[in-house]
Amino acid sequence: MGASFALALRANGYAGRLIGISRSAETLRKAQARDLVDIVSSELSHAGEADVVVLCTPVRTLITQIGQLANLCRPGAIITDMGSTKTEVVRAMDALPAHLRAVGSHPMCGKETAGIDAADASLYRGAPWLLTRTRRSDDEALSIVRALAERVGATPREIGVEHHDALLAFASHLPYALAVALVTATDQFSLNQPEVWQVMAGGFRDTSRVAASDVTMWLDILLTNADAVLGAVRDFQFTLDQFTALLERRDEEGLRAFLAAAAQARKTHFR
Amino acid sequence: MGASFALALRANGYAGRLIGISRSAETLRKAQARDLVDIVSSELSHAGEADVVVLCTPVRTLITQIGQLANLCRPGAIITDMGSTKTEVVRAMDALPAHLRAVGSHPMCGKETAGIDAADASLYRGAPWLLTRTRRSDDEALSIVRALAERVGATPREIGVEHHDALLAFASHLPYALAVALVTATDQFSLNQPEVWQVMAGGFRDTSRVAASDVTMWLDILLTNADAVLGAVRDFQFTLDQFTALLERRDEEGLRAFLAAAAQARKTHFR
Repeated sequence: MGASFALALRANGYAGRLIGISRSAETLRKAQARDLVDIVSSELSHAGEADVVVLCTPVRTLITQIGQLANLCRPGAIITDMGSTKTEVVRAMDALPAHLRAVGSHPMCGKETAGIDAADASLYRGAPWLLTRTRRSDDEALSIVRALAERVGATPREIGVEHHDALLAFASHLPYALAVALVTATDQFSLNQPEVWQVMAGGFRDTSRVAASDVTMWLDILLTNADAVLGAVRDFQFTLDQFTALLERRDEEGLRAFLAAAAQARKTHFR
Repeated sequence: MGASFALALRANGYAGRLIGISRSAETLRKAQARDLVDIVSSELSHAGEADVVVLCTPVRTLITQIGQLANLCRPGAIITDMGSTKTEVVRAMDALPAHLRAVGSHPMCGKETAGIDAADASLYRGAPWLLTRTRRSDDEALSIVRALAERVGATPREIGVEHHDALLAFASHLPYALAVALVTATDQFSLNQPEVWQVMAGGFRDTSRVAASDVTMWLDILLTNADAVLGAVRDFQFTLDQFTALLERRDEEGLRAFLAAAAQARKTHFR
């Protein structure tokens, strides 16, 4: 996410100085070789030079880093992030000293492949970019983060922090849980029926795609939004039970209405 | 499926005469205007002229049509189909008179959009095409259907009928059920939280895609493979319960192992 952001800023004419910080020497070497940023560093302390710090690590890592930045950033600096859950992130931002500013931020894009080798200047184009106010947000900080989002082609949208996590539990975390469980159940089934992997077509491929995503990123998302995710899974199980009951009864008209309503909703909300 | 098959046969140099049969006058008019086939007809009885009849209707419709073809086809004619379930189709083929031949057939491709307007000459390219023997199959009939599949770029593969339906319950019908239940649960949630549809990204889009597919086609698939689908859904629910239990306990290491195994399986079986 960070390398793509640097690429996208440069591709869209951003003239400011970019500092790339990573623990990985290989990532830093590649960033330098490809001229992705002006300065590379393995030390978070380099963030002390920045006007805006964009944390692109997994959610629980970035929460730790917010605490570390409290003693590193200069007065007036803006800390923001790219985490997919916001409640715990914003709580950490709220606790920052009053001379720092912070805006919760969530660009809604990604790939199954993470890391600098998958960097893509067009990753953010057309993506929703959700912004959440914190106790350390002022209007200027919000408009600066908003402008960065617009610079890379995303569409910023402000949203309350709890609202964010409740919506994302359905829009993103539940689909991931289903993809993981689908692959796991099929993998179990394949112990006796290995040919199942040879008869795969587009439906399974698409439905399971997100299960291949970065595990540490998702572990942090699930653990920082567990209650909302568990609620969404329960709602889903209730709905799946309705489907099962219709099929068990061979209730043709009920099943047709159930499938038709879902097809209609999918077509209405996605082009 | 039928219009795409005609297009694909022509695009790949098939020189035989093509007869297109549909109940829809509009489909026939379009087929004629686009020169998709040599002859158009609204009457199934025209299939009596064919050496090979390819039924591309929903599964329960094509089962009825197999019965009708018993009195229409000429001796030695080969009846095949494109249905996504095989047990009930093959049962109908088994009951055909001994002067007819029949091969169960399932090209594993498709789109959310059905009908002649979505016809696509490349639809079958690279797709697995499953073939099932019936009591009315001989080696010549099998090799003729196999050659048609290869002609349009698909990869034919023979499979037993019950095996087919058990595998497809996981590989195709379960993902559809999950997509439908995901959209339905989210649609219910959106009654109180309509903004959920505004924060959608790639994960939900992909996981739910197949829910937009043709309802009549899927209703027939589910009703002709109900027991295997119900079994796959039960296996899935058991797996989802394991996920839920790990998340409820905030079992970080257990959850990490669960997610990592799914990511590994997904990456192993899909490029």
